[in-house]
Order: sequence, then C-alpha cells, then structure tokens
Amino acid sequence: MNKPSVVEHCPQGFFTYTTSCGIKDASLDLGVVFSETPANAAALFTQNAFVGEPIKIGRQHIQSGLIQALVVNSKNSNVATGLAGHENSLKVCRKVGAEMGITENLVFPSSTGVIGRPLPVEKILTGLDNLKGKLKTPADFTGFAQAIMTTDTYPKFVSAKVGKASIVGVAKGSGMIEPNMATMLGYFFTDAKIGSSDLHRILKSCADKSFNCLSVDSDTSTSDTLAIMANGVAGEVDLKEFEDTLAMLCTDLTKMIARDGEGATKLFTVDVIHADLLESALKIGKSIINSPLVKTMIYKGDPNWGRIYMAVGKTFGVHLEEPEMKIIWGKDRSLNMLTTPVAELHKYLSENEEIHLTVDVGTGTHSCRVYGCDLTEEYVRINAYYTT
Amino acid sequence: MNKPSVVEHCPQGFFTYTTSCGIKDASLDLGVVFSETPANAAALFTQNAFVGEPIKIGRQHIQSGLIQALVVNSKNSNVATGLAGHENSLKVCRKVGAEMGITENLVFPSSTGVIGRPLPVEKILTGLDNLKGKLKTPADFTGFAQAIMTTDTYPKFVSAKVGKASIVGVAKGSGMIEPNMATMLGYFFTDAKIGSSDLHRILKSCADKSFNCLSVDSDTSTSDTLAIMANGVAGEVDLKEFEDTLAMLCTDLTKMIARDGEGATKLFTVDVIHADLLESALKIGKSIINSPLVKTMIYKGDPNWGRIYMAVGKTFGVHLEEPEMKIIWGKDRSLNMLTTPVAELHKYLSENEEIHLTVDVGTGTHSCRVYGCDLTEEYVRINAYYTT
Repeated sequence: MNKPSVVEHCPQGFFTYTTSCGIKDASLDLGVVFSETPANAAALFTQNAFVGEPIKIGRQHIQSGLIQALVVNSKNSNVATGLAGHENSLKVCRKVGAEMGITENLVFPSSTGVIGRPLPVEKILTGLDNLKGKLKTPADFTGFAQAIMTTDTYPKFVSAKVGKASIVGVAKGSGMIEPNMATMLGYFFTDAKIGSSDLHRILKSCADKSFNCLSVDSDTSTSDTLAIMANGVAGEVDLKEFEDTLAMLCTDLTKMIARDGEGATKLFTVDVIHADLLESALKIGKSIINSPLVKTMIYKGDPNWGRIYMAVGKTFGVHLEEPEMKIIWGKDRSLNMLTTPVAELHKYLSENEEIHLTVDVGTGTHSCRVYGCDLTEEYVRINAYYTT
Repeated sequence: MNKPSVVEHCPQGFFTYTTSCGIKDASLDLGVVFSETPANAAALFTQNAFVGEPIKIGRQHIQSGLIQALVVNSKNSNVATGLAGHENSLKVCRKVGAEMGITENLVFPSSTGVIGRPLPVEKILTGLDNLKGKLKTPADFTGFAQAIMTTDTYPKFVSAKVGKASIVGVAKGSGMIEPNMATMLGYFFTDAKIGSSDLHRILKSCADKSFNCLSVDSDTSTSDTLAIMANGVAGEVDLKEFEDTLAMLCTDLTKMIARDGEGATKLFTVDVIHADLLESALKIGKSIINSPLVKTMIYKGDPNWGRIYMAVGKTFGVHLEEPEMKIIWGKDRSLNMLTTPVAELHKYLSENEEIHLTVDVGTGTHSCRVYGCDLTEEYVRINAYYTT
C-alpha cells in the first residue's frame, strides 16, 4: 500500500473548489465538488446515536437519489450544536445552491473537526462567494482530499477505470475511527451511469467489506459519512465490474486510514477464517484489532500469542473450540505461532510495516478481513495533550 | 481510597503459607490459604471462552460447595497448555491434599501470569513440601496478597467486621482487566457461618455491582476468578449485613485495581443515572471508561466534552435522547459541562487523582457506577516493550 501521488483516472463532468476560509488557520478547510448535471447518489451514515447536523440534512437530501454538489468543511464539526447548528448547515447548502443556480436539496453537506463548538458559518459563507467562477475543471480531487483533512498526515485518494468510466474516491480519518457503517468521511465520484438504488446497494456491500471492517481506536465518530455520486457522463458500465472495482478502492482507502491511524506505525490486517458465521468472524476480528494488549504487542513486535488467544476468547456470544484454533502470521500464512521459532516470529513482527495475522477458528466456513493499527505512545500524546 | 497497610479484621481458623519457589525470580510467587475445617465456598469465573486449566478444575471442585485449601501461583498462568497443563494443576491439588491429609477435591487452584507457557510444576511441588509445618497462624493475608501479584504495584487487601465474624478480601490485577463476572483474581475469607448457596448468591450480587463494573483496558483475562470461603468458626451472622459489608469490600478492591491499572495515574469513576434500563446504564458506563479518547482526555485533563458525548452516543442498542443528556463533573456533581467555565473544568480534571463523572441520560430511572482509569504512555510502554 503506497501513498497516492496523483489521481490517475478522473471522471468527467465534475468540478472542484477548495480554499482556506480561516476556520482554524491558513490551511485548506473548505471543499466543494460540483457535477455538471444532477448525479444519482447514495450515502451511508454513522451509527452513533448522536449525529452531526449535516448528517440530519444529508439524510433528507439524499432521499431523492440525486445530488449535484457536495460541500465539506474541516477543522470544526457541527455536532451537539442544536437548532442553531442545524440552521447553519442549511445556510451553507442554500449558499451553494444560490451560487450555482440549483435547489438546496441537491446539496450534500459535511463538517468534520472538534465537537461541540458552533460552526463558524460566516467564514464558510464568505469562502463560498462567487463559487461558480472559482470552480476548477478538470476537477482537482487531490486538493479536495487535502481540504477535508483533520489529523490525517496525508491526503487519501484512489482512482480506477471501469469500462469507459472512471471512479475517484477520497477519504479522511485517523482518530475516532470504528465506523460501523461508513468511514469518518469518504466520497466517491464517477461518470458511470448507474441508478441511485443500485448505487446504494453497491455502496453498502462494498462498505461492509472495507470501512466496516476498520478500527483505529474503537471510537465511532458522530460525523461518519460515506457518499457516492454518479453523473452518467461516460454512459453505462458493467455493474458487477463496477462493484468489484469500487470494493477494491474502498479497501485501499480503508488501509490508508488504518495505516494513518493516530500515532500508528503499522498497518495490521487480520484474516479470520473458518468461523461458524460471517458475523462471528467479524466480531473476532474486531476483538483482536481493538485489544490494547494486541495493539501494543504489534507496536514493538513481541510474539506474545497469549494475547491473540485472549482476544479471540473474549469474543462473547461466538462459537469457539479451543483445540481447533490456529494462529498464523505472514501475508503468505507461513508462520504458525506454535511451530515457528520465537526469534523468527519476532523478526517478522518487528521488521515489517504491514503485519498480517490469520486466525483459523476451525468451526465453520465463514471468513472476513479486518484492518487496524498498532497503539503507540504517540496516540496517547496526540489525544492527551490536545487542548480544547 | 488509600492503599491498605495492615489487615485490621482477620477471620479465625485460617492459616497461610507464602514462598518464592523461583518461577521467575526471587519474589513471592506461591501462596496457600488453609481453613481448619472444610469451608462453605462459592466462586465466579471468567467469561473468556478459553479458560485456564485451574479454572476447569476449580469449577469441578467448587461443585460440592466445600473448599478447605486455596493454592495460587503467580508469574505463570496455566492457559492453552492442553492435557499436560490440566494434569499439572491436578498435581498441585493432589500435593496440597497429600500434605494436609485432605482430598484433592477440597483444594481450589489458581495460576496467573504469562499465557501459553507450561506451568513449572516441579518448582511448585517442591515449594509445597512440608506444607503443614510451614503454615502460619494467625494467617498472613498481606503476604498472600503479595504472593499473587504480577504487574500490580502494591498488594491489594481489605477487611471488615460483620457481627462477631470478620471478612478479609485479597485481589490482584492491573492489566487485561475487564472481568465480566469476576476480577482477575480475588478471594474472600470469612469465619462467618453461611451456606454455600447463600454465599454464591451474595458473591454474584456483590460482583455485579463492583468487579463487573470495572475495566482497565477492555481485555478479559483467561484466568479471572473470584472465590469466597466461609469456615463458620465465628458462628452465624446477619446475611443482609454480611452482603452489604461484602459489597463495600468488593467495591474497595475494585477501586484499588482500577487505580493500579497498568500505567494509570488516575481513578475514573462514572455514574450513569436515569437510564431506561440497568443494562443500558452499564453499557453506557463501559463505553465511556473503555473509550481511548476519553481515557487519554482524563490523563491530561482537557475538558473535551465532545468525547464523552461521542462515547455515550456509540453505545449501540441503547435508548438515548440527545436533548435530555447532561454531563456533570465532580464527586458532588457541581460542575455541569455546559455551564462551568472551561478553566474551572480543566482545574478539576488536571488537579485530582480521583475523577468523578456523572452522565444523566434522562430517559428512565436506572443507575450504575463503573470504574476505570486513564490511558497513558506508560500503559503502552509496559505492554509494548514487554518481552515474552
């Protein structure tokens, strides 16, 4: 998994705008993506019971299955801000609508950053003045990825071709990450022609295999959103091929988020195989990647397999049989924990930046792959010394 | 909550023996408690699906409701060790039985320490040679508390009177602690006369309000055990008074374990009040004390209430109503997060070693109290640089 440098495959018919409107400092904090025509769209949202105001509005606006503009600010979320916060997010949608000559219902808003502080809406509205004249084409998705960052250490984007169409995906997130339905913020744009109900089905299926298998710190954000816009400019595509490609892009973004987890030094990929149910496999995987004792072990590479054993065993409500379980390290599954010399395991764990673990539960036929990272002193520092 | 210095109230009719049998180094690693008569007994065990061999044996031996001797070694658990491990724990029981002239079924074994390494049973058996002649009276429960320690920084014990009887409680634990039925290791000894089924009911009820409300790091050990022995020497007691006293002692030990959590600098007590169900209150409380973002915030005292809000909101499957919720700091519940100046909150959070949080959910009548600690760089260090 390498950090991306350029967007190789850019869908047609999209425009972007990014700026710093000064929410926190002079870094990029506001981004807009605009489609030349209303695009079929679908979105998934956080499962946190307390959601940001943009999510409440986004849920309404996505119901028509059409979105033409996406507007995202970073550095300040809009959560626990009450009626005033709701009105602020609506103002942003109305402003984009007015500038572009479209109804506010075609605008999809997101805000990410510190919780509980009022949205500096005047700065954002000023930043959107004369939007139409400032939109870029071809779209600059790299800049957009940068504008939505908070504690991310680099902009996260991916792209691919499907037939004559292209897909580009952009995401942000590095802390408060156990999405449980979507990543913190993730957006896909494509010029393929796909109906919004197909988009929703495909997006959900892809998210279940990627973002929903991710945890940096077991904390589920109040602002998680994953959305896709398909403007149809490039015509129809093979849906199966589109889904496979989108799944691959989702996985790539998921791995980037895990590897860029706050303070993380390693990407930790866990395959749980031969479980009795898919749900069991996912629970076991999450139990492993969320265990502080496993995460600290991954950090410095001590092959303390008792911790894996403990983390599997504490997956309550799952059928487990102790003698059937195998713990195997390595991308090629070559290092069985019981038979490999400790020195060799230590070498694998301490010398690699991407650690692969396979837990063979031995009770059924279901498998899943989950993504996490190590727990380091730096995670504690980032989050303990942070000042509100 | 102060660290204990002496056992004030020592039950009659118990003997102890402690030694270093050299499992890891020269520190105490083996302890025995012997009752002059078979004692009524009850025990609760870990909910981890993979349990240590001593737990399998303890579950059998406790079925009669009678235990006369308890034998515990630290520095090495006996988990994932297969048939040989099972036989080793039986050997230890048989040895204690033979030395004391009682059946092995009256012996209750525990082992705690690193997982997956064979029990050094020969060292333990040698350490038990001539046990009868080496037993101390009056019993030295302080020494016993010391013998069962692993990463604990001090021995944990409590005591109290109930009528003419006394109760002493001893516990160990500081990492891999989210008991979900019992603490890592906890034992109570009393000379009160109480039947084993009453003991079990009382122990369960007390554990549900104390040890089961505790989490240091969300990791559930494979060796968790909580047991009580009542030898009846002091005669009958008022059962209600006994239960209240035992509940208080359980809570004291729970707080000691939380405060002594690996790397912890603070005890974090959370009251969840006015929840719709007791189960909801407990889930919300656990979600808060297990959140890495909340734990790091408690460490350095930044009053970032968005993190509490997030941690409550991600308690899936619980009835929540955003406008009803109140977040209040302080033992006296005087610092409402919304109306107290940030500087005052920061002062409270950063200058106290015991932090009290109250979350008023506002949806019902159920309350619970849970115990946790902060997450520090030291936790990461202890567990990342640990070498198997």
